Amino acid sequence: EKVYNVVVLPGDGIGPEVTGEAARVLELVSQKAKDFKIKLQSQLFGGAAIDAAGKPLPEETIKACEAADAMLLGAVGGPKWGVGKVRPEQGLLALRVHFDLYANVRPALFPSQSLVKHSPLKEDIARGTDIIVVRELVKGLYIGERQEADLDTPGSTGEASDMMRYNKHDVERITRLAAYLALQSKPPKKLHSIDKANVLACSRLWRRVVTETVEREFSSQGVEVDHQLVDSAAMVMVSNPKKLNGIVLTENMFGDILSDESSVIPGSLGLLPSASLAGLPDGKSACKGLYEPIHGSAPDIAGQGIANPIGTILSAALLLRYSLGRPNEAEAVETAVRKVLDAQEDGGLGMRTKDLGGNAGSKEIGDKVLEVLETLL
Amino acid sequence: EKVYNVVVLPGDGIGPEVTGEAARVLELVSQKAKDFKIKLQSQLFGGAAIDAAGKPLPEETIKACEAADAMLLGAVGGPKWGVGKVRPEQGLLALRVHFDLYANVRPALFPSQSLVKHSPLKEDIARGTDIIVVRELVKGLYIGERQEADLDTPGSTGEASDMMRYNKHDVERITRLAAYLALQSKPPKKLHSIDKANVLACSRLWRRVVTETVEREFSSQGVEVDHQLVDSAAMVMVSNPKKLNGIVLTENMFGDILSDESSVIPGSLGLLPSASLAGLPDGKSACKGLYEPIHGSAPDIAGQGIANPIGTILSAALLLRYSLGRPNEAEAVETAVRKVLDAQEDGGLGMRTKDLGGNAGSKEIGDKVLEVLETLL
Ligand SMILES: CC(C)[C@H](C(=O)O)[C@@H](O)C(=O)O
Ligand SMILES: CC(C)[C@H](C(=O)O)[C@@H](O)C(=O)O
Repeated sequence: EKVYNVVVLPGDGIGPEVTGEAARVLELVSQKAKDFKIKLQSQLFGGAAIDAAGKPLPEETIKACEAADAMLLGAVGGPKWGVGKVRPEQGLLALRVHFDLYANVRPALFPSQSLVKHSPLKEDIARGTDIIVVRELVKGLYIGERQEADLDTPGSTGEASDMMRYNKHDVERITRLAAYLALQSKPPKKLHSIDKANVLACSRLWRRVVTETVEREFSSQGVEVDHQLVDSAAMVMVSNPKKLNGIVLTENMFGDILSDESSVIPGSLGLLPSASLAGLPDGKSACKGLYEPIHGSAPDIAGQGIANPIGTILSAALLLRYSLGRPNEAEAVETAVRKVLDAQEDGGLGMRTKDLGGNAGSKEIGDKVLEVLETLL
Repeated sequence: EKVYNVVVLPGDGIGPEVTGEAARVLELVSQKAKDFKIKLQSQLFGGAAIDAAGKPLPEETIKACEAADAMLLGAVGGPKWGVGKVRPEQGLLALRVHFDLYANVRPALFPSQSLVKHSPLKEDIARGTDIIVVRELVKGLYIGERQEADLDTPGSTGEASDMMRYNKHDVERITRLAAYLALQSKPPKKLHSIDKANVLACSRLWRRVVTETVEREFSSQGVEVDHQLVDSAAMVMVSNPKKLNGIVLTENMFGDILSDESSVIPGSLGLLPSASLAGLPDGKSACKGLYEPIHGSAPDIAGQGIANPIGTILSAALLLRYSLGRPNEAEAVETAVRKVLDAQEDGGLGMRTKDLGGNAGSKEIGDKVLEVLETLL
């Protein structure tokens, strides 16, 4: 019997509350599984780790993550650590680099079509949006050499710089990952590669390597790619997001912006999951991954038990699929969530968290998901 | 009697059609004015200049622009020149650098509130949006040293790089310009400075210099500034754009993305103007500026006389205000446009261009604006 190790990094704010519900989901999956078990352990991370151990990513946490198959993260940050030299998000950036988590996968889709009324977009524009943003996560402006400005020496020009740098290998591997995800659907999803090739050398490299990699390795399987400029994509994402249906493939900084922009379309940030992967999640080799909801630590509602746990529960589903290679269990969790959301909307059961206009608590939602999931496993 | 020189750069696609209508507006203003005249002359630019003179910004065009008070541009680019080594938009980038047009001003507001139904956002979310994006336009990733990737030598890693660089002076001058615009309203508009200070050294410089410049020079006049991360701003721009009402102040690449994102809120790209300025438009010294609608060259509808000329006409209004120091005439043009748009919406006169669901031609709209403007001057 296979045993998987999952490290839970509750982090800050509402992190512990939402990972708590997702952990219960993973425990139920483990309990019901015939041929595997999931072992969960919690580790310090983010602001909580700064308070307890002086740094956002303590050695003990790194060690535990090295020994694990996957990490499930709540959220990091908060005003308490906002301005210091040691900040919670440094732990997140360090974790990405340490495990070379080069692919950030961010679905912006409606976990239940009934949610379209919560979108800020007009319903006919939002309905049917089905985008997965694949963002390169460890290169570009995030990792290039920097020079901090000297603003305190009189006479200094106060110049700062940041380097954006990509090489062929960086672009090839993220393209392969995007194409792999495209091929999970039949017919394959369309790839939309986003760059700024009319200005940046990195984008011209990006455009050419994406094109060549797809042509060489994936076009015979029916994968197609088009190319769009980032400014235009930022428009289309609002004016007609369905035009970007499929996989939106882009570099680190553009991906940071576009994935956040895309994530407001489905109407509640609390619903959306993410995965950050160190390799192709094709089940052929171990694929370490970090899974987290896309929402922040929401210090204003922390500790009240009212945070929406669904983004984290759906992150646990991605963890099952990509790092543990358990697509059936992943789908069961996603189906359970969809049923709960559909019931919330149709039956007026009052079973919604505050972000969706209800007053149910995190635990009530978790209970309901577990109840439905129990019947599906 | 003062004579102003304005160079018209029709450019490509629908460029000649839309600048044609805006030129008529400027001619009427000139004709009616008591103490000044506007002299217009056309020059080659963009793809049209590549075809006629082999480059997108010929010397003769530069010379004419050097002698002018302002430039009015239609649009550049098109599939015809899309992939070549000499491309139309290089002329635009060169023009910005040559005249140090460091401030791009892009209002994303409803020229007529009746247009809110054309917004892709739900009406209650879109209504009341009133944002001016002020984008630094000549520094950062657009101008830093680049290294193109070598993808053809076997064994090359194919590495590319682009440098983002800012100094204190760069940030001070764009902050002053944003604050100047904020002070045109009573009470002053709020400044929202956008950066990625949790990652980039340039953004930490940006944040500190914006803060210090506003505190030192503008806070006594009531100007306030807050700071937001670019990913979060890209979300808020869709989920609740009124939170960004005021002046959104940001660097070149972020501004390219956010200004385009903001511009879809009012529902027709054809309606929005822009200004790119070489200095404070405070009337104390000459402020050279380039004015253009934010839409592209739309080759698919070029030559049919159906393009919406309003973005270019409103750009001419900004030209009157900022480069010629003629606020009354600028306001008259804006009022004329608003009246025409209101009439289109309320009276069902059928006087709309295709992008707003009507079938009027560019010239009919131009005629109508001139007719109303005539009564206002
Ligand atoms: C916290 C921050 C450094 C991080 C990023 O920019 O990558 C976050 O915005 C994200 O997208 O996960
Ligand atoms: C054409 C292109 C180089 C330009 C830019 O990126 O600045 C355009 O997108 C703009 O915003 O004016």
